[in-house]
Amino acid sequence: MTIKEFQQLISEKYEKRDRQRGTPGTFLWFIEEVGELATALAGNDQQNREDEFADVFAWLCTLANINDVNLEKAVQKYCQGHLGYK
Amino acid sequence: MTIKEFQQLISEKYEKRDRQRGTPGTFLWFIEEVGELATALAGNDQQNREDEFADVFAWLCTLANINDVNLEKAVQKYCQGHLGYK
Repeated sequence: MTIKEFQQLISEKYEKRDRQRGTPGTFLWFIEEVGELATALAGNDQQNREDEFADVFAWLCTLANINDVNLEKAVQKYCQGHLGYK
Repeated sequence: MTIKEFQQLISEKYEKRDRQRGTPGTFLWFIEEVGELATALAGNDQQNREDEFADVFAWLCTLANINDVNLEKAVQKYCQGHLGYK
C-alpha cells in the first residue's frame, strides 16, 4: 500500500470529523496515541507495539489531511539519491 | 511509494545508528520532532508543516525498524472493508 493510499483511506474514514474538531483538538488525540506507543515500547507485547505504531501513523495522517499536507510528497526530501523511489 | 519502501529507505539510512542508540534515546529524538510539528501547526508556513510531518513520519519509521515492526503490515487493521488495499 502506498503512503498516499493509506492517507486517502484515513481521509475517507475520519477527515470530516477531524476537520470539524480542528487541529488543536486532533493534536491532543495524536499525542494520546504517542503516549500509548511509549507505554507499548516500554513493555514486551509485540502485537501491542504494532497496534500502537499503526495508531500513531493513522493519527499523523489525519492531522496531515486536515492541514492539507500530502505526506507522500512531503517525504520526497528523504529520497534524494534513491532514484528508484518516486 | 509504498509504506514498506519508505520504511526500508529509512532503515538503510539510519537503522544501524538508531539501533545502537536504542529505543529510549531514539524516542527522545522522535518527541523532539513531534514538538517541532506542534510549532509548525501553530504557525502559517505550509512548507515548514510539510517538512515536519515528513520528519515525524521518518522518526516513527526508524523507531519501528529498531523494534522489528513492519508498519505496512501493522496498518492492515485499518484496511478492513477496503478490499482494494493490500
